[in-house]
Amino acid sequence: MRTICFLSDFGLSGDFVGTCRGVIEGIAPGATVLDLTHHVPGFGIPAGAEVLEHATGYMPRGTVYLAVVDPGVGTERRAVALRTAAGSYLVGPDNGLLVPASRALGGVAEAVLLSDGRFHVHPVSTTFHGRDIFAPVAAHLAAGVGLGEVGESLDPGSLVPLSLPGTTRTGLGDLETEIISIDRFGNARLSVTQEEAGLEHGTQIELDPGDGRVRCSYQETFGASGFGALIVVPDSHRRLSISINQGNAARALALSVGDRVRIRPLDECQDDAGA
Amino acid sequence: MRTICFLSDFGLSGDFVGTCRGVIEGIAPGATVLDLTHHVPGFGIPAGAEVLEHATGYMPRGTVYLAVVDPGVGTERRAVALRTAAGSYLVGPDNGLLVPASRALGGVAEAVLLSDGRFHVHPVSTTFHGRDIFAPVAAHLAAGVGLGEVGESLDPGSLVPLSLPGTTRTGLGDLETEIISIDRFGNARLSVTQEEAGLEHGTQIELDPGDGRVRCSYQETFGASGFGALIVVPDSHRRLSISINQGNAARALALSVGDRVRIRPLDECQDDAGA
Amino acid sequence: MRTICFLSDFGLSGDFVGTCRGVIEGIAPGATVLDLTHHVPGFGIPAGAEVLEHATGYMPRGTVYLAVVDPGVGTERRAVALRTAAGSYLVGPDNGLLVPASRALGGVAEAVLLSDGRFHVHPVSTTFHGRDIFAPVAAHLAAGVGLGEVGESLDPGSLVPLSLPGTTRTGLGDLETEIISIDRFGNARLSVTQEEAGLEHGTQIELDPGDGRVRCSYQETFGASGFGALIVVPDSHRRLSISINQGNAARALALSVGDRVRIRPLDECQDDAGA
Repeated sequence: MRTICFLSDFGLSGDFVGTCRGVIEGIAPGATVLDLTHHVPGFGIPAGAEVLEHATGYMPRGTVYLAVVDPGVGTERRAVALRTAAGSYLVGPDNGLLVPASRALGGVAEAVLLSDGRFHVHPVSTTFHGRDIFAPVAAHLAAGVGLGEVGESLDPGSLVPLSLPGTTRTGLGDLETEIISIDRFGNARLSVTQEEAGLEHGTQIELDPGDGRVRCSYQETFGASGFGALIVVPDSHRRLSISINQGNAARALALSVGDRVRIRPLDECQDDAGA
Repeated sequence: MRTICFLSDFGLSGDFVGTCRGVIEGIAPGATVLDLTHHVPGFGIPAGAEVLEHATGYMPRGTVYLAVVDPGVGTERRAVALRTAAGSYLVGPDNGLLVPASRALGGVAEAVLLSDGRFHVHPVSTTFHGRDIFAPVAAHLAAGVGLGEVGESLDPGSLVPLSLPGTTRTGLGDLETEIISIDRFGNARLSVTQEEAGLEHGTQIELDPGDGRVRCSYQETFGASGFGALIVVPDSHRRLSISINQGNAARALALSVGDRVRIRPLDECQDDAGA
Repeated sequence: MRTICFLSDFGLSGDFVGTCRGVIEGIAPGATVLDLTHHVPGFGIPAGAEVLEHATGYMPRGTVYLAVVDPGVGTERRAVALRTAAGSYLVGPDNGLLVPASRALGGVAEAVLLSDGRFHVHPVSTTFHGRDIFAPVAAHLAAGVGLGEVGESLDPGSLVPLSLPGTTRTGLGDLETEIISIDRFGNARLSVTQEEAGLEHGTQIELDPGDGRVRCSYQETFGASGFGALIVVPDSHRRLSISINQGNAARALALSVGDRVRIRPLDECQDDAGA
């Protein structure tokens, strides 16, 4: 039995997640289901895609990823399942959500449209394909059904694309990156990874979020900075984050998701930096 | 080992659910426990009963339902376990919470009072029977103990009754229904099911929540209506819901739980409607 | 395979808990992981320690406790694992969090520093030892690795101490206790246990939270008091709590965590009180 890793934007205040779990347990009794998170910001396809991509580094080989952030439910968007080169499965809507994770898992080896109703829960509702299509298909795949059985073959090249915002190197050590999410503490997560940035702990940097420059330092831990200090720190996904120690950076600097941010190191001691 | 489906109003901010899980694991090691929801609105017996009833359609056969919405804990209300005609068990307080689910599972075949202390955790507290009585009894049932062992027999006819609010057909196509819950987005869930209403996608309807009539349309998906539009849509439980697309219907129309709502279709194209 | 009991202050809005679960599943496939709570108030070492200590009474024998409330992550604080006289394991930061639970489990029989990188996830981040050190070590212990293998031996006497606030008996029946936490309903939890207090249901008491005396009664259930009544009740951990029935006691009496509270029974009918 394969492990199922379940991500959604359902929240935990209702019975959406629990009902999907019941459907899975009926089809794949005893399968381990890991709740990655059910609090992807509502309709946040890029945010969900980034979390799913990151999780691939920590889940067991052969995991079935069940991912439902699905603003297009009930419209013409396709329901799909993918097998990756690394032998994992991804099940969810064809809206880009699965794409970065599929790349991290070696690329799509096989794709199908979830067209075979034998693997769905009936009657299929118009508003909750998580319960009626995605969860049961993921459970059948976890229980050993082959990808080719759950629907008709699809050209992987026809999948809706999604690219997470990239990082541009604009000069010696300078780079331009993008804010991909802001958490409830006001930390602004950037697309640039710790490895791409190659900054050394304690480096002084100049930050330009579009409307003026501020000075701060790059710190590898919160504890290394003073109370109220503006800093850039690596987060748990190894991406950089603009933060204020025990404060709210997004509010202080009026930052928004999608803002482009330029980062320029002010001194040149970068010889042994990097991950 | 039977699967346990666990519903409560404990929330997840404390250790109530986790402690019950520890008790279960000690008695029925490795049993699958599905958290249906732990956010039933505080003391909401009808709301919890409706969620539990709906879940019976999605849980494996033979599931043990552990349900704790228990404002009467520490008073004279009885603690009970039921075996249904469909071979499932229900464990919880005798306050009506289990009744609609037991009907959906074929009716009560056998009922007992949880009077045998050998199946409880001691000392039994006065405020947390979830941990001390209901969870351990559910775990023993999941592990194979018979219903007759956990307490003395009870007349099923003596159980505290509960009926979910019904729907009255008041004329050709007209109906009167009741608001059973309002979610955090302001969607007002009605007792009438999609099947009972028999409306066709796009039907214009007149809605009277008691203090005046408003016009809107019945839509099978949110996506089919414009931003800010008042609509009636089926929800994930196949009940109708009064909603505003990306707005708050309960606030806009001053709706409350328990309000009676009249629905009248304005045109007659209902020939192939229904589930 | 041992059961893992997981407590943290990660919350459930992000993917922290889910990522740790993935790491555990990869190392100890199929291990049961019980989420005790992930809402320990931020950086609340004493609050987390109290919850963990209480849980030891309800978890299976031989459980591996994985506890992460870790404001010192990335600093010099040590990462440790303990084996208790009762045969359980505790894994987490050496900041006092594990101490009351280890005592409840018979005391520390063996302690190690988590110095062996073979049992960590690489690269080890500076900000998330839950995922990279504590979760994988707990999983290896659950899967059968011996404590001596995961790091070098440590003198248990060198562990950072923590004592939960105690209760002082200041006269015949009088006692002085401390507020250890306040929940979202405004209930103020006291360090004194139901057994230590030895009060009888219905006893009239005088409460002095430092700035004046108020009268109330000790009740064994909420239901026994009227709407809006100030009462002292035992909570699910068998500690006393200052509460207002359907009101907010902390706000009404301006109570804060750490406040000392004196309790004096006004009548003397305590002959058969106690747990």
